[in-house]
Amino acid sequence: MDARSITHFIASTHQVFETMLSMPVTPGKPSACCTVPSFQSDVSGVIGMTGDVVGMVVLSFPLSTARGVLKAFTGTDIDPSSPDFSDAVGELVNMISGAAKARFEGLSVSISCPSVILGPGHRVQQVSDATCIVIPFECPAGKFVVEVAMRKAESAVGTKAA
Amino acid sequence: MDARSITHFIASTHQVFETMLSMPVTPGKPSACCTVPSFQSDVSGVIGMTGDVVGMVVLSFPLSTARGVLKAFTGTDIDPSSPDFSDAVGELVNMISGAAKARFEGLSVSISCPSVILGPGHRVQQVSDATCIVIPFECPAGKFVVEVAMRKAESAVGTKAA
Repeated sequence: MDARSITHFIASTHQVFETMLSMPVTPGKPSACCTVPSFQSDVSGVIGMTGDVVGMVVLSFPLSTARGVLKAFTGTDIDPSSPDFSDAVGELVNMISGAAKARFEGLSVSISCPSVILGPGHRVQQVSDATCIVIPFECPAGKFVVEVAMRKAESAVGTKAA
Repeated sequence: MDARSITHFIASTHQVFETMLSMPVTPGKPSACCTVPSFQSDVSGVIGMTGDVVGMVVLSFPLSTARGVLKAFTGTDIDPSSPDFSDAVGELVNMISGAAKARFEGLSVSISCPSVILGPGHRVQQVSDATCIVIPFECPAGKFVVEVAMRKAESAVGTKAA
């Protein structure tokens, strides 16, 4: 994973938060280690990438930050037990990944459905054959991270049988 | 998601457990609701699908079952804090999804990198625009579930720019 790939995710997170949430975000220093000491992941949205780049994008928040971010996104304080809460987190990781994907010029990248993980203090681990970069962000609702695990595809995307 | 798609995942789980772990598995009744009452998810492997089918596959275990399953898979009782533990869970969900993907005849399906979630009693929620089916399984190490969320792709997989 080259440095340019990481800038795609910083730019797309910035773009989604600015345009969809009217919320400024400040990125911190990206780190090669997919654990940020003392960072509490209570709510994570994950989405798979396939094509010329194969990987996973993870958007993780402490619960209070997730509620604040979703309030800015939807205009409502959504109860975390509501399906609307997971839908909104899934939509956020979908928009960030979709906007980043559009920046991979000359590469074909597809994204999967998102899934959302709820559970106090969970960890989302990446497998060791992928390069993993974690980007910390700060916004008025608190701190959050975007984790990107990627490896080069072994072969091109299969073509549909005629 | 039609009933045949579900049989692909039942068959692939059976195939991977029989051939790679020498462990028989008994599938229970698949359910349209992605929560199994009283089921404890402590360890989950997730992997995205893209192409003609867009979705997410989730393999979830209580911790004791995950340890027993991975012992049968690797021959060792791996400490859950070791990267080998996540790698082995990731490899299992990768093999199950890969074997299921091979059964989608005439459809092009690609799978992403896996990610692994660790955390006692976490929930992996699917977004509401996807059809979600959960398949409970029983094996000598305990109970586990395979969850499949899928929706038809809105457009075909993009082709690489020349």
